[in-house]
Amino acid sequence: VLRATLELAAEAGPGGLRMDAIAKRAGVSKETLYRWWRSKTEVVLEALAQRSLATIPAPDTGSLRGDLSAFLHATVASSDRTTRRLLRALAAEAASDPGFADLVTRQFIATRRASLGELLQRGVERDEISSRQAAIAIDLIYGSLWYRLIFQNAPLDTSWAKDITDTLAPPT
Amino acid sequence: VLRATLELAAEAGPGGLRMDAIAKRAGVSKETLYRWWRSKTEVVLEALAQRSLATIPAPDTGSLRGDLSAFLHATVASSDRTTRRLLRALAAEAASDPGFADLVTRQFIATRRASLGELLQRGVERDEISSRQAAIAIDLIYGSLWYRLIFQNAPLDTSWAKDITDTLAPPT
Repeated sequence: VLRATLELAAEAGPGGLRMDAIAKRAGVSKETLYRWWRSKTEVVLEALAQRSLATIPAPDTGSLRGDLSAFLHATVASSDRTTRRLLRALAAEAASDPGFADLVTRQFIATRRASLGELLQRGVERDEISSRQAAIAIDLIYGSLWYRLIFQNAPLDTSWAKDITDTLAPPT
Repeated sequence: VLRATLELAAEAGPGGLRMDAIAKRAGVSKETLYRWWRSKTEVVLEALAQRSLATIPAPDTGSLRGDLSAFLHATVASSDRTTRRLLRALAAEAASDPGFADLVTRQFIATRRASLGELLQRGVERDEISSRQAAIAIDLIYGSLWYRLIFQNAPLDTSWAKDITDTLAPPT
């Protein structure tokens, strides 16, 4: 179901997604689909969350700098055209509807923040960063990612990954 | 005209703004209004840009840390309810329309980036920060601001200003 959802989003765009099309492509009934997810938004959020977990590993390289660099480069590599379009569509609706913003936060953003948070927490335990700095780093990193996605004034590329790593975990 | 625009936005919300209402409140003709601005979006962007310039000074305190702290605290103080609602409405449309994103970038975001950029440039000249770090700092700071505005998972408050200052310009 989750793979079918991303395939259809790639073909029809975020606006063209329909629950019955997802059911058909995944080979399940609409009833089954609605038993597990209440809306197409919830399917999309879970598909994106699962895809991120699968494509963005958080390796334990032994240093904050190594971990952050690997994580941010994998984040860039994982953000293909379909993902970026889906994220923009989610941001558009979140910006105009606080209830939708809360849903996106709980079912997608929280999973991404948790992955990055684990990596930063290892840095806190190694005394490379304070816990207050680790907390704000999550906002700085994901903030700049969404900012570039929404306003498209700079690309989400390896320079982004490298510059953030150098700023938040400078070479010693 | 710019003051009338923000007053009307406060009363009617971003969705209720109309060119004829702005003209009436400002005591000018619709023809005059359209001579200077092509759409209500352009009036709103200029009103926001001028308001930010007036309410967010960039004092030269002699250190990056002092400058950044003053600038971010003024940014928080300046973001009243009407401003936050207008910014969210702009983000919603920017996320779904690249042409609109470009307009917002040119007529509002660029002016904010320039103010913050001047302050960071003084830090570069004092060797407190590299020019590459100054460039990405603009994205990190405004990224986290828009992220909190859109997803509302944390407030835009003095803790935000303080934590960012401590991370990007730590006490020496």
